[in-house]
Amino acid sequence: MSGKYISMAVIRRLPLYYRYLSRLKETGRERISSQELADALQMTASQIRQDLNNFGGFGQQGYGYNVEKLHGEIGKILGLEREHHMIIIGTGNLGHALAGYSSFDKRNFQVSAIFDVNPELIGREIRGVKIRPMEELEGYLKTHVVDVAALTVPKQEAVRIAQDLRAWGARSIWNFAPVDLGLPPDYLVENVWLLDSLMRLSYSLKEQEEERR
Amino acid sequence: MSGKYISMAVIRRLPLYYRYLSRLKETGRERISSQELADALQMTASQIRQDLNNFGGFGQQGYGYNVEKLHGEIGKILGLEREHHMIIIGTGNLGHALAGYSSFDKRNFQVSAIFDVNPELIGREIRGVKIRPMEELEGYLKTHVVDVAALTVPKQEAVRIAQDLRAWGARSIWNFAPVDLGLPPDYLVENVWLLDSLMRLSYSLKEQEEERR
Repeated sequence: MSGKYISMAVIRRLPLYYRYLSRLKETGRERISSQELADALQMTASQIRQDLNNFGGFGQQGYGYNVEKLHGEIGKILGLEREHHMIIIGTGNLGHALAGYSSFDKRNFQVSAIFDVNPELIGREIRGVKIRPMEELEGYLKTHVVDVAALTVPKQEAVRIAQDLRAWGARSIWNFAPVDLGLPPDYLVENVWLLDSLMRLSYSLKEQEEERR
Repeated sequence: MSGKYISMAVIRRLPLYYRYLSRLKETGRERISSQELADALQMTASQIRQDLNNFGGFGQQGYGYNVEKLHGEIGKILGLEREHHMIIIGTGNLGHALAGYSSFDKRNFQVSAIFDVNPELIGREIRGVKIRPMEELEGYLKTHVVDVAALTVPKQEAVRIAQDLRAWGARSIWNFAPVDLGLPPDYLVENVWLLDSLMRLSYSLKEQEEERR
């Protein structure tokens, strides 16, 4: 598998498969056909077979896929079997929400430190993790492996902090600030831009109206 | 334009163009070439020309694009010139964060009502909008146009509330609950699944490690 090119469109769908298979696993389901997967995920069976063929095709003609095996393989492809260390920068409502999600642990993302500029918040804990002052960020990054730095600061500060995060060794940034961080293209940034999502919704609403006319 | 098929991939990139052009407009910039756009957005000039050609091609050979005009046209395609009424269901940290974003107003998304089950929160205001009890949701939806219902409730309740939202007339759901709402495919749902985004980051981190080996 390694070295083989897999399109970004396929990669984008893997979490979808993974989540659905997690649910099936929880219900004790052992096998599933590509047709059933297709119906559940509103795709075609041939697209599903094509996607999963990218990874060596875990299905057996006439038997379908082994749920647990497929779930495990996709988890491995996504790198979910390793533990990831995450820090959160900014504890506004959004940072608070992220720090509070127990579902991240289940996918092996552990929040190991939280940082904020507000002196009143320093020392408080969210789910057992203490909030530290921003002055400690550099020292922390230089002495700990940080796989993901979730950035939930106001956009005016985001670019500067992002540069620091990269310089001090954070392996990637999960960016919630509504701004392009302007980091080199080879540095890993995953943007969560809520306004973009809202604009797509706006487009679909408009299309729907036009169709009904 | 109407009736012409535009691929989802192009639609997905429009908010990116729109945001960048908004910034250019603010700085007073009048024209931009596809090459400059390409450099700024880390795409190729030919991809940009191809994307924008879908909408009749607003560029002029040798002159580039008129920033204001292109910004306006993309805004129109995205339906951003109309006012959208949004309600928010659930005022945990995430719902609070959404209710607090002033940038949604700028894109013509107005939060017109907020709902929660917690009696202690009822009557409080977030940015001037009162929090109402869930019992008022049905009446509100039946007497107001609601373009977008942002759903930030725990996943155990999300599916049931989503069915109500649809039945009572919300035009679309912006879903933050980490669950498939299971609504008919012709009903508009835009999912914001943070775990999916985190899983993609996990994949990229793994790929990067393997490349370095």
